[in-house]
Amino acid sequence: MKLGTCLYNNQTFVCIAQTEGVLLPALDPAFDQAAWRDMISLIESGTDLSAMLANATDAMRVKFADITLLAPIPRPRKNVMCLGLNYLEHAEETANQIGRTGKAPQYPIVFTKCPTSVIGQDATVPFDPDTCSQLDWEAELGVVLGKGGKKIAAANALDHVFGYTVINDLSARDIQLSHKQYFLGKSLDGGCPMGPWIVTADDIADPQNLAIACRVNGVTKQASNTRNMIFNVASIIEWLSRGMTLEAGDVIATGTPSGVGFVREPPEFLLPGDVVECEVESVGVLRNSISAAG
Amino acid sequence: MKLGTCLYNNQTFVCIAQTEGVLLPALDPAFDQAAWRDMISLIESGTDLSAMLANATDAMRVKFADITLLAPIPRPRKNVMCLGLNYLEHAEETANQIGRTGKAPQYPIVFTKCPTSVIGQDATVPFDPDTCSQLDWEAELGVVLGKGGKKIAAANALDHVFGYTVINDLSARDIQLSHKQYFLGKSLDGGCPMGPWIVTADDIADPQNLAIACRVNGVTKQASNTRNMIFNVASIIEWLSRGMTLEAGDVIATGTPSGVGFVREPPEFLLPGDVVECEVESVGVLRNSISAAG
Repeated sequence: MKLGTCLYNNQTFVCIAQTEGVLLPALDPAFDQAAWRDMISLIESGTDLSAMLANATDAMRVKFADITLLAPIPRPRKNVMCLGLNYLEHAEETANQIGRTGKAPQYPIVFTKCPTSVIGQDATVPFDPDTCSQLDWEAELGVVLGKGGKKIAAANALDHVFGYTVINDLSARDIQLSHKQYFLGKSLDGGCPMGPWIVTADDIADPQNLAIACRVNGVTKQASNTRNMIFNVASIIEWLSRGMTLEAGDVIATGTPSGVGFVREPPEFLLPGDVVECEVESVGVLRNSISAAG
Repeated sequence: MKLGTCLYNNQTFVCIAQTEGVLLPALDPAFDQAAWRDMISLIESGTDLSAMLANATDAMRVKFADITLLAPIPRPRKNVMCLGLNYLEHAEETANQIGRTGKAPQYPIVFTKCPTSVIGQDATVPFDPDTCSQLDWEAELGVVLGKGGKKIAAANALDHVFGYTVINDLSARDIQLSHKQYFLGKSLDGGCPMGPWIVTADDIADPQNLAIACRVNGVTKQASNTRNMIFNVASIIEWLSRGMTLEAGDVIATGTPSGVGFVREPPEFLLPGDVVECEVESVGVLRNSISAAG
């Protein structure tokens, strides 16, 4: 099932993607109003999604043209947690670029992106050359937790996953490198495109066998497979929850493969007018354009 | 004025510290109920705090013994933003320890602590040797924003400050160093003691002239002054807001002076039974003890 968050009649709803439009269960008073207005509430409610779908009514049906899709979780309740250098070829290309020896990290490298950076499908990314002149793409598989916990073992970590989405971990390389810690360069307004949907975990047979790609203006820049992650999804959840209690609705970006812009010869960065598409097989295509800051 | 958040009759309230107890304005139906139940709502409401105090009623008065103080913002709406190496002597002691050349950072180093790590006055910090054996103290001046914004100039940045608090930026050094990026080592459950109060900005004549100290079991480990910050509060707000929209209720930890445990000879770390007090002049004394994990 593909779940999203959308604006309809200027109000926010959780929606379910169908072939010709979406279902907005909150439009039918017979369904839980609070849960179907907010994705995190829906996740926490433990609603039986298949049962809901089986009982879908005409009152819920809305055409794609009548909604504006937002990020599936437009305002996460904490920063998005992100893996750095989690694909070997990307770890190597980065190490070469900054003059270090390239090797796989022994321990996961984790930084965060602030909730204000999250935007959805087709939202534009403001480009502000006064702040950043080296805006770079990073296609990533996003993981949304359905159940929190602490000291979650990798063996059952995937039971904690509600679904998967696509994240473009946009990176201001100039800021990221000069400030040492990644947070500021990863948290520009518009710097965390997410979506278009959350595909529920039951629809993804194996999160470690999904093609992942990034295209800029139609040209493929990244093309890999999630099997090439150094720390896989289950292992990431185990590492994160060792000392920190995870919660339902937490969003994790699992790292990007090789092919980012700043390591290219010559380096390539995003500019106003560029269109970036990040795609994860069976999860979706996340598309955003870069615009001059307003 | 000293504002806090407390439990009273199993409900959460914003409280105002008085000599012999607290005022809970929400107990008087004449006052804005929603605002006085939640610190961020209060900040956003723009309530005239002096007018409220002038109209305080007996219905609001509660003894200290009848409340349990929580962190002034028990659940920030995003990660706490933290400055690293923002006091020169601490930057130098850290560089020496990890075998680098000690010098002041040219650009602020910013990382985050997750909202689940926040605890309040007298709450215990769980010590879990399976996860971390090098738990270290870091006394810091905390800044709470009253007004958000983007591209805030340092010249008027202090107008955006609602008040000040004390933060102990507890650091799992083993995790922080092995994972490179600081986030995981800074986000253990209980790893962000905050409080006891937010002292409103009008009560602090100059945030860059406050003695700051940390004591472990009564022994002074850190003793400096906020004038020794490399990037001062106004400059930090300017830097953070260059590309990222700040919001009311945002919490910033402004960095710690020298005297942390892991650079000592031999290194010193916190253990169950230890009591840590972080003090900032005119802001307060934040006290927490370390306990074996339950």
